[in-house]
Amino acid sequence: MHAASIESLIESFEQLPGVGRKSAERIAFYILERMSTDEALAMANSIAEAKQKTKFCSVCQNLTDTDPCKICSSPKRDKSVICVVESPEDVNALEATNEFHGVYHVLHGALSPMDGITPDDIKINELLLRLAGGEVKEVIMATNPTVKGTATAVYISKLLAPFDVRVTRIAHGIPVGSDLEYADKVTLIKALEGRREM
Amino acid sequence: MHAASIESLIESFEQLPGVGRKSAERIAFYILERMSTDEALAMANSIAEAKQKTKFCSVCQNLTDTDPCKICSSPKRDKSVICVVESPEDVNALEATNEFHGVYHVLHGALSPMDGITPDDIKINELLLRLAGGEVKEVIMATNPTVKGTATAVYISKLLAPFDVRVTRIAHGIPVGSDLEYADKVTLIKALEGRREM
Repeated sequence: MHAASIESLIESFEQLPGVGRKSAERIAFYILERMSTDEALAMANSIAEAKQKTKFCSVCQNLTDTDPCKICSSPKRDKSVICVVESPEDVNALEATNEFHGVYHVLHGALSPMDGITPDDIKINELLLRLAGGEVKEVIMATNPTVKGTATAVYISKLLAPFDVRVTRIAHGIPVGSDLEYADKVTLIKALEGRREM
Repeated sequence: MHAASIESLIESFEQLPGVGRKSAERIAFYILERMSTDEALAMANSIAEAKQKTKFCSVCQNLTDTDPCKICSSPKRDKSVICVVESPEDVNALEATNEFHGVYHVLHGALSPMDGITPDDIKINELLLRLAGGEVKEVIMATNPTVKGTATAVYISKLLAPFDVRVTRIAHGIPVGSDLEYADKVTLIKALEGRREM
């Protein structure tokens, strides 16, 4: 069996998403065999430091080490358009396009009654508070096109009905560069429904 | 873009084997979003602690937090049979069978002139020193059945020729439970060569 300190290292990696027992062992032995002590300590330190420095932006709830975050505090961003996403990774994906110049709101999850995730468990109240100021003109629901993401988008759009704000949903359809032949039925239906004049 | 502390966390995971940029991001956000501060600090601590406590066993060169390691210091193990493997993971795989009662020698790699890995880069000298005592009767070469592993086994077996010691190689053949149809040619040839009386 493994020495106790090695076993505890393996177990700490095993809890990460997408890392099974085998991968956790491979990672642990890589750290112990191939990394220098300095590299391993730098890694340990970056976990502790990131965890301690990182907090939720008080405005958009994205992960940040400054508050408000860079996007919320940028004078270049249009504060009247809020794009609502499930996770910080979604913000990164949208930022990588360089095409969206509004601001974000990160829900940190999607509604899922089966998993016990209710509106109180995700950052919906924080979104409503942002709308109270009256500055916001449009809320784009960019939650994932899954059952949970769609349910969340519908739920929030109903909550936003009393506000004088446009609520939109990102388009679903055939991904650019992919093949019609391999698209699933629901995506094809959405692509047809969402057709536009050329 | 990511906040600096998040970016450095992602980069520290990106250097691990089998972890690309996407997985590193997923792991980093999991730590920041889903883990408690205590859990994250425990993880950082287990990396630092394992790295600092773990060393190579002075006898078999396996990773251990006691020296000699548990296997080398066990009175139940037969010190006259040494099983030579490439990595600590190989020791675990063999130990899991509960069938081998000798001791191990971990080379920490295999010869690979193309990658600049010469006999001085792996723990061959340490193996020769163990044979000097004259207590060892058999050395089982259990390096991987790859080009590098086989070359290493052949190289070491030649070095061992002057010693009064039996040098054996683990059997290659069709894995138990698998299908002849899907075995590659070389494995089939090895399986035929290694056939035994029933």
